[in-house]
Amino acid sequence: MLDDTIAAIATPLGEGAIGIVRVSGPEAVPIAEKLFVSRTGVDWRKLGSHRLFYGLVVDPATGRPVDEVLLGVMYAPRTFTREDVVEFNCHGGIVPLRRILELVLQHGARLAEPGEFTRRAFLNGRLDLAQAESVLDIIRAKTEAGLAVAMSLLAGELSSRVRTFQDRLLGLVAQVEASIDFPEEGIEEATREDMVESVRAIMGDLEELLRQARYGKVYREGLRTVIVGRPNVGKSSLLNSLLREKRAIVTEIPGTTRDIIEEVVNIRGIPVRLADTAGLRKTDDVVERIGVERSRDLVKMADLVLVVLDASTGLTPDDRSILELVREQPGIILVNKSDIGDGEALARQVTSLFPDKPVQVISVKTGQGLAHVEEAIERMILGGQAVASQLPLVSHVRHKQALARCYEHLQEVLRALSAGENLDLVAIDLRAAWEALGEITGTTVADDIVDRIFQDFCIGK
Amino acid sequence: MLDDTIAAIATPLGEGAIGIVRVSGPEAVPIAEKLFVSRTGVDWRKLGSHRLFYGLVVDPATGRPVDEVLLGVMYAPRTFTREDVVEFNCHGGIVPLRRILELVLQHGARLAEPGEFTRRAFLNGRLDLAQAESVLDIIRAKTEAGLAVAMSLLAGELSSRVRTFQDRLLGLVAQVEASIDFPEEGIEEATREDMVESVRAIMGDLEELLRQARYGKVYREGLRTVIVGRPNVGKSSLLNSLLREKRAIVTEIPGTTRDIIEEVVNIRGIPVRLADTAGLRKTDDVVERIGVERSRDLVKMADLVLVVLDASTGLTPDDRSILELVREQPGIILVNKSDIGDGEALARQVTSLFPDKPVQVISVKTGQGLAHVEEAIERMILGGQAVASQLPLVSHVRHKQALARCYEHLQEVLRALSAGENLDLVAIDLRAAWEALGEITGTTVADDIVDRIFQDFCIGK
Repeated sequence: MLDDTIAAIATPLGEGAIGIVRVSGPEAVPIAEKLFVSRTGVDWRKLGSHRLFYGLVVDPATGRPVDEVLLGVMYAPRTFTREDVVEFNCHGGIVPLRRILELVLQHGARLAEPGEFTRRAFLNGRLDLAQAESVLDIIRAKTEAGLAVAMSLLAGELSSRVRTFQDRLLGLVAQVEASIDFPEEGIEEATREDMVESVRAIMGDLEELLRQARYGKVYREGLRTVIVGRPNVGKSSLLNSLLREKRAIVTEIPGTTRDIIEEVVNIRGIPVRLADTAGLRKTDDVVERIGVERSRDLVKMADLVLVVLDASTGLTPDDRSILELVREQPGIILVNKSDIGDGEALARQVTSLFPDKPVQVISVKTGQGLAHVEEAIERMILGGQAVASQLPLVSHVRHKQALARCYEHLQEVLRALSAGENLDLVAIDLRAAWEALGEITGTTVADDIVDRIFQDFCIGK
Repeated sequence: MLDDTIAAIATPLGEGAIGIVRVSGPEAVPIAEKLFVSRTGVDWRKLGSHRLFYGLVVDPATGRPVDEVLLGVMYAPRTFTREDVVEFNCHGGIVPLRRILELVLQHGARLAEPGEFTRRAFLNGRLDLAQAESVLDIIRAKTEAGLAVAMSLLAGELSSRVRTFQDRLLGLVAQVEASIDFPEEGIEEATREDMVESVRAIMGDLEELLRQARYGKVYREGLRTVIVGRPNVGKSSLLNSLLREKRAIVTEIPGTTRDIIEEVVNIRGIPVRLADTAGLRKTDDVVERIGVERSRDLVKMADLVLVVLDASTGLTPDDRSILELVREQPGIILVNKSDIGDGEALARQVTSLFPDKPVQVISVKTGQGLAHVEEAIERMILGGQAVASQLPLVSHVRHKQALARCYEHLQEVLRALSAGENLDLVAIDLRAAWEALGEITGTTVADDIVDRIFQDFCIGK
C-alpha cells in the first residue's frame, strides 16, 4: 500500500496563525499542480526540492480561491517519508484546513491513518522502530528532560546499542555453529568457556540498561504520585505549594490541559504526575473517605508515595497503619509542621520503625525543608545520578520487555553451556536472544505490534 | 518599534504532528544561525530565499539537541511581514515548541503581541487594514461561504471599491476647490448641478454596499437564531433534526468545540448559530421557565426567530403572545405536526394575522417541509440571491459604520449644495466623507482603532 498517496492535517486542531495539510506519495506533486496557483509567477515545478512557494489554493471546480498558502515542496528521497511530500501551509482555522484537505482527497490522495507518515518513514528505512516510537514521545514530552530522553531515542542511541549487542550475539552464533560443524573435543571446551565469558559480559551490559529502564519510563510517562496521611496533617497545603511553584510547562499554556487528567509538576526535570485538582481534593481524605482498602490500591498503583505526618501530634495509630501501607512501596516520609512541633524527634522515631525509608522534616507553612523534598524525589528516581550526566536509554516498557526476554534467553544459554548440553540447543537460544533485540529496532517484529504502536499516534504524524 | 525581532508559536496549541515557531525581523536569520544545525551539510546561509532546511535545533548553552526541525527561511521583502522571516517547523508538542520559543527569545527576539505579525504586514504596506482584518476572518470562518467572503476581503475587493469611491470624492473636492478659487457665478451653478449628480451616484453605490452589509455580517459572525414556541410543539425535535443533518464543519472535528458556546449549523453556506445543547434545552421551555420578559430579550438579540406552532392544537392565546414577540423581528413561522393536524388551515389563519411573515407547514416527524425551512432562511438572509452569484463585500460592522458615516457626510453635501451654501462647507464634508472611507483601508484610521483590531488576533498571527 505504499504506492498510494496519503494526506492529513498535520497541525493541532484549533485556532492558530498557521495550519498545515501534509501530503506524501507519488501523487503529492501532481495534486499540488492541480490545486496550487503561484502568485509570484515562478514555475515552481522547474525549481528544486525543499522550497517554499507563495500562492493560492484554488478549487478547480469553481475557480475560486480557497486560501492563501505557502506551499512546501520536498522531493523523494530527502524527506521524512522518503516519498515526495508537499505541505500546504495555510491559515490555521478549521474551515480553510478542512477545505484544502477535502480538495487534496478529491484529487488523488486518501486520508492518512494515525501515524501513517511515520510508519512510512519506518517502512522506507528512514527510521527504525524505536526511532519511530520516539516521535510520539517528543510530541508528548512533559518536561525538558523527557524531551531529551526522546531525542536520544530518535538519534538512535538505544538502537545503536542494541545493534552492538546483536553483533556480539551473531559472533557467538558463528562460534557455536563452527563448533557444531567441527566437533573436536578441545575446541568445543575452549569455546564453551569463552562463550560463557562473552555471554556474561553481554548480560552485564543488559542489566545496566534494565536498571535505567526503571527511571527511563518515568521521564516518558511521568511519576505517578500519591500523597497520603491523616486529615489536617497538611497534604493539601503541600500539594498546593508544589503546584504553585512548580507548575509544569504543559499546564502553563492555556487550552492545553483539556485532555490532561493530572497536574504535572516538573521537579528537577522529572514529570511528577498528581491527580487533577478535583482528584486531589479527594485524596486529601483518602484514608477516611474511601477506606484503607481503596488507599491500598491507590498506593499500589503509584510509582511514589508521599506520606505526610504531623510533628505537632506525634505518631498516632492511624499514622502507623498508613505507614504500613507503604512498607513495600517506594515512598518518602514527610514530617510536617516542624514549626509547631518537634519534627526531629518524630523523624527519629519513624526512622527507627522504617529504617529504609527516607524521612524529611518540613514545614509547608514556613517552607522549611521543601527543597529537600525535591532532592529526595530526585534521589529516589535517579539513585543520585544527575540528569545531565546520564539520560536513560530505555524509556519504553516494550523495549524493556524485549531486553528482559533477551536476558532470559542468555540465562538459558549459560545454563545449557555449564550443563554441557548440546550446542544446537545453545544456538537456538542465542538466536532467540538476538531476535528479542530485533523487536526493539523492528527487524524481527510482528506486524500486529507495529500496528499497535502506530495506532497511538495522531493523524498527520 | 519595527526594528526589533518578534517571535511566537504560530500553530494552534495542543498535540499534533507539526508545530511552528515563527520569527520575524532583522535578528531572525542571526537567531537561526545560533540555534540551527543543518544535518545535510549544506551551508544554508549561502542559499536563496524561500527554502527549507533539515536539521536540529541545538541549545548553544548545553550543546544538546532540542528537536529535529525543518527550518523555513524567507528573506525580506518577499515575506508576509516584509521582514526576514524564519520558521522552525518542529514536532507539534508543547515542550519542544516551548523550548524552541524560549531559545529564540533568549537569543534576540521578544514575544510577539497578538496579531503583531499581521500588524507588521499592515505597517509595511503588505496589506491594507481591511485585508489585515480578513486574516482573522479566514481563521475563524464557520462555513465555506464565510471563508469565501473573507478571501474576497483579503484579495482587496472591498478595498479597491473603497479606493474607487475615494478617487471620485477627490475629483469632486478638486472641482469644488477650483470653484472656490475662481468663483464665477456660471461655473459655480453648473458645478453645483454636476456635483449633485455625482454625489447621488456615489450614494447609490454606497446604498448597495450597505444593503449587502446586513447579510455580510451573517457570513462572518453567523446568524444568531432562537427557536420559540409553547411546550411540546416540537422545538427540540426541530433543533435535533437540524443539528443531526446539518452539523457544521466546526463541530465535526473532535476537540474543536471546547470554546464554542453555540452549535453552528451550516444551512446553504450560512452559519446558523444555535445555543449549545445545554442552552437549547433551556430555550425549549423558554416562555414558561424564564418568563415572557426574558424571552423578549432573547428574541430581541436574535438575528432570526423561528416560531413553532402545533397544527394539532390550533392557535392558542399563548401562541398569539409568542407571535406578538416577533412582530418587529425577522422571523419565520413554522406550523409543525402537519401529519396529525390541519397545517394548511393554521397556516392560512396565521398569514391573515401576520401577513408579512413567511409561514411554512412542516412535520419534523415525517420530514415534510424541512427543506423549505432552509430555503426560507436563505431567502430571508440573502433576499433570494444565490451565494455563488454575489458574495457580500462588506462583512465587518466597522466597515459598515465607516460607509454609513461617509453616506451621512454626502447627505450633508447634498443639503448644502441645494441650499446654496458656501462651497467651503461643501468641501469640508466632502473631505470628511473621504476620510470616513480611509478608515476602512487604514489610511486615515486612529491608532487606538488599529490597536483594538489586532488585539482580537491570536498570538503568532
